[in-house]
Amino acid sequence: MTLTVHEAAAIEQAATPQLVLDTVRDALIAHAHGRTTVPPPLHLQFPDADGDCHVKAGWIADAPDFIVKIATGFYRNPAQGLPANHGLVCVTDARTGQVRAVLDDRGLLTTWRTAAAGALVTHAMARPGASLLAVFGTGEQARLQVEWLAKLRRISTVLVHGRSRDGVRKLCEKFAASGLRARPTRAEEAAGADMVVTTTPAPAPVLYAAHVRDGAHVTGIGTDMPHKNELPPALFGRAALIATDDHDQCLHHGDFGHAVRAATVTATGDTPVGFLLEKPVERPDDAVTVADLTGVGAVDAALASAVLRELTRRQS
Amino acid sequence: MTLTVHEAAAIEQAATPQLVLDTVRDALIAHAHGRTTVPPPLHLQFPDADGDCHVKAGWIADAPDFIVKIATGFYRNPAQGLPANHGLVCVTDARTGQVRAVLDDRGLLTTWRTAAAGALVTHAMARPGASLLAVFGTGEQARLQVEWLAKLRRISTVLVHGRSRDGVRKLCEKFAASGLRARPTRAEEAAGADMVVTTTPAPAPVLYAAHVRDGAHVTGIGTDMPHKNELPPALFGRAALIATDDHDQCLHHGDFGHAVRAATVTATGDTPVGFLLEKPVERPDDAVTVADLTGVGAVDAALASAVLRELTRRQS
Repeated sequence: MTLTVHEAAAIEQAATPQLVLDTVRDALIAHAHGRTTVPPPLHLQFPDADGDCHVKAGWIADAPDFIVKIATGFYRNPAQGLPANHGLVCVTDARTGQVRAVLDDRGLLTTWRTAAAGALVTHAMARPGASLLAVFGTGEQARLQVEWLAKLRRISTVLVHGRSRDGVRKLCEKFAASGLRARPTRAEEAAGADMVVTTTPAPAPVLYAAHVRDGAHVTGIGTDMPHKNELPPALFGRAALIATDDHDQCLHHGDFGHAVRAATVTATGDTPVGFLLEKPVERPDDAVTVADLTGVGAVDAALASAVLRELTRRQS
Repeated sequence: MTLTVHEAAAIEQAATPQLVLDTVRDALIAHAHGRTTVPPPLHLQFPDADGDCHVKAGWIADAPDFIVKIATGFYRNPAQGLPANHGLVCVTDARTGQVRAVLDDRGLLTTWRTAAAGALVTHAMARPGASLLAVFGTGEQARLQVEWLAKLRRISTVLVHGRSRDGVRKLCEKFAASGLRARPTRAEEAAGADMVVTTTPAPAPVLYAAHVRDGAHVTGIGTDMPHKNELPPALFGRAALIATDDHDQCLHHGDFGHAVRAATVTATGDTPVGFLLEKPVERPDDAVTVADLTGVGAVDAALASAVLRELTRRQS
């Protein structure tokens, strides 16, 4: 029997925004309730090539499949005309261990589940009326976090902050092209928005806690290795509600872990984001809330499984 | 660009015994010298299906590729007419992170590298004149450990011990068919051979240290999870030379770890097998020697890389 490989173009068509949002939401809820198996991820680093490889596995309890996902980031690739990110997902039968299919998605599903998780959590935790959004970073996730959040609520203006002036300008143009009002801004003003999303690989915080206003919500999605840190520990100290997508991962290599080690919060000070997606979040209007997302293998599992089901349905 | 998938039949042809033995030997030597990157493996367990999944990654320093390998073992599969083991290897460019190819080997390369590593180490550590070989277990590795060792030295007789009488009889028939003299035996006699290889998933030692004779060598290859344990701690206590394929792994989930926790040896009492493959091992004729092999991701990397090179050469 030949290995079934699904290519990126077909996966892109099958993974509709509705399918991605529904699946990611359900998987984060299942994960919050402990109905998932997510071993610690495996990391490889290639310092000479400025590259890394993350391998994640995940299983939603009683699901017919589990997945193993390989994702690489080689940050000098764009200079050679190659994409920085690459990867694939192996979907394996959880009753027989036989590999059912390889989704040769080139990292697409990771990109989309990250966008969907960020949008779902930001939407759930921000004040219902909040509409001024700021994004730190100018890469693909900066664009997607905004575009996916715009699927869930009205965005009045997008404030864009990044180190590259050119990157900021281009991202504002992209937002304008998709009908969103956007403008470049300084870090201080960006940090003062109603909703703030950080999407950078920064090794030190990209904003000051003092610049975040009462009533704001901040979602950090860039910190995925122990040496990265986007959100300042002091911000966690100020927060009335802290959500993490995976307690252990966020403690080990998320912004939450930096805050715990800086002793601005205790290691038990977080709530699983899945609980906040089940019903409307109760938050005082003047509270600061923070979400730290590191990416959960169980979400990858649920999404790959759902996409494979959809691909198989379309073929039959 | 479509993902390149190489199928098992082509891989089987490309992976000649000479290529496998040379590559495994070189990789174990490189690993002993610290010229490899091997992150801790990732494990998933599926108790309801009596299954598990191991994901290993590895890189030989400066090699053009690294690999991520998925290997599953679902032990009720044979009853349904499916192989117990399955798996594939993703070979990825170490300079760009792009997946170069998937080797859909169904676990073949893992099986062969395990056989080759066991044979190389047993041959290197056993007395030069030793020819009486015993094997514990009746599975595929029991057969292969013997057949691959027979490629390296003369075997006078193979003593086969296993729990299944039928399994023992069939394995002896297979050995006879490949020209090896073999017979069933009790555990005590098997443990007294010149060379003993254990290939079981046993949760408790399969032999008594007191039954192992002075001058014998014992290689354990079955213990690959913390709850498994083939070789008794007392055997390590008796050994003049203990070799491990990966110190940390053997400490964590090999027989060596059980011995260290039982305090029959210290945690620094092992030598990397790679050092013993570089030049003839100096051992007193009456010493007992032991090797604990858990399987090293760097060996998988080297072998997959060598096989992919051979496949590419044959295609061009």
